[in-house]
Amino acid sequence: MPSIDFWYEFASNYAYLAAARIEALADRAGVTVRWRPFLLGPVFAAQGLNTSPFKIYPIKGRNMIRDMERQCAAIGRPFRLPDPFPQNGLSAARIALVAIDEGWGPAFTNAVYSAEFVEGRTISDKTLLADIVTGLDRDPDAVFAAAETPDNKARLKAQTEEALRIGLFGAPTFVTEDGELFWGNDRLEQALHWARHGSLSGL
Amino acid sequence: MPSIDFWYEFASNYAYLAAARIEALADRAGVTVRWRPFLLGPVFAAQGLNTSPFKIYPIKGRNMIRDMERQCAAIGRPFRLPDPFPQNGLSAARIALVAIDEGWGPAFTNAVYSAEFVEGRTISDKTLLADIVTGLDRDPDAVFAAAETPDNKARLKAQTEEALRIGLFGAPTFVTEDGELFWGNDRLEQALHWARHGSLSGL
Repeated sequence: MPSIDFWYEFASNYAYLAAARIEALADRAGVTVRWRPFLLGPVFAAQGLNTSPFKIYPIKGRNMIRDMERQCAAIGRPFRLPDPFPQNGLSAARIALVAIDEGWGPAFTNAVYSAEFVEGRTISDKTLLADIVTGLDRDPDAVFAAAETPDNKARLKAQTEEALRIGLFGAPTFVTEDGELFWGNDRLEQALHWARHGSLSGL
Repeated sequence: MPSIDFWYEFASNYAYLAAARIEALADRAGVTVRWRPFLLGPVFAAQGLNTSPFKIYPIKGRNMIRDMERQCAAIGRPFRLPDPFPQNGLSAARIALVAIDEGWGPAFTNAVYSAEFVEGRTISDKTLLADIVTGLDRDPDAVFAAAETPDNKARLKAQTEEALRIGLFGAPTFVTEDGELFWGNDRLEQALHWARHGSLSGL
């Protein structure tokens, strides 16, 4: 079965939408998903950006909030922008790597995103992260210990360096096995179609 | 019938895709389209940008080209980025205002976009614009004279000022009668649905 790399960062509101949609759409398309958390900080820095473009261009940021409100309302979810935005997703990303290895990565990722963008909570808060891990029937002490090993920290760093190397500039990004890079939640359907058919014809 | 304002600038490649799609989709949605050319220069300047974000962030610009190639291939069109990019759309926008008054605005707009993004031609070239006008069975001398009157020039300026006032920050942008602003070709279907139903539910 063809696969697709789903590159996401916990700070990204559009990656939240993509994470909520990707498994059902990938199933339907006959594509498997590799969940690949990374950090946007170095990716933005490589473009000369010291924070989210939604902060640097506030008029765009305000429209993003309205766009999220509209899209979330259509699927019956409230939208809350956490304060501060963007959030620090470092701890969550390290846990996500452990969770992905153990098969509960998507569930953990979607739970963090819901806390962040439905409830507006602070996702760097260890208590919140422990509650989420516990809610998924895992032991938070063991998970935190695994997440904070030098090896696991290095893994997230290497994954972020790979993101830079293959030309990522934002999140979410979908990369097919033949190297096509699709940027943005709006491109998820196209990326899955490409993964399956090698073109967008017939979409 | 509900209507939607379609704000476009001739320099914008994603507005080209939207212009090619909007009339058929609006017909199907039961929405009428008001074609509203404007100039992105002042809109970008208001955000501190001195040119297209695709030039300021070249990694994004390179992915945009590939994104256009993929999407255009799927509808059987080649894609060529004109040189220089972005093009100067001032003369074309002034003519478009005249053409819209006389009922040939969409045909003119789509013809200019095809010359620019299928053939890679220079759309500030008066010979090209005259050829396009002639191809639409209009007299280029009369059209150019009407386009370059002080009144018509002021009209484009006022339209661009209106774009700034209502919060546009890029092109294409779709604005519904109740003031919802949808940015980007990817939002065309949502904008039409909202224009008809006042929400995205059921889309």
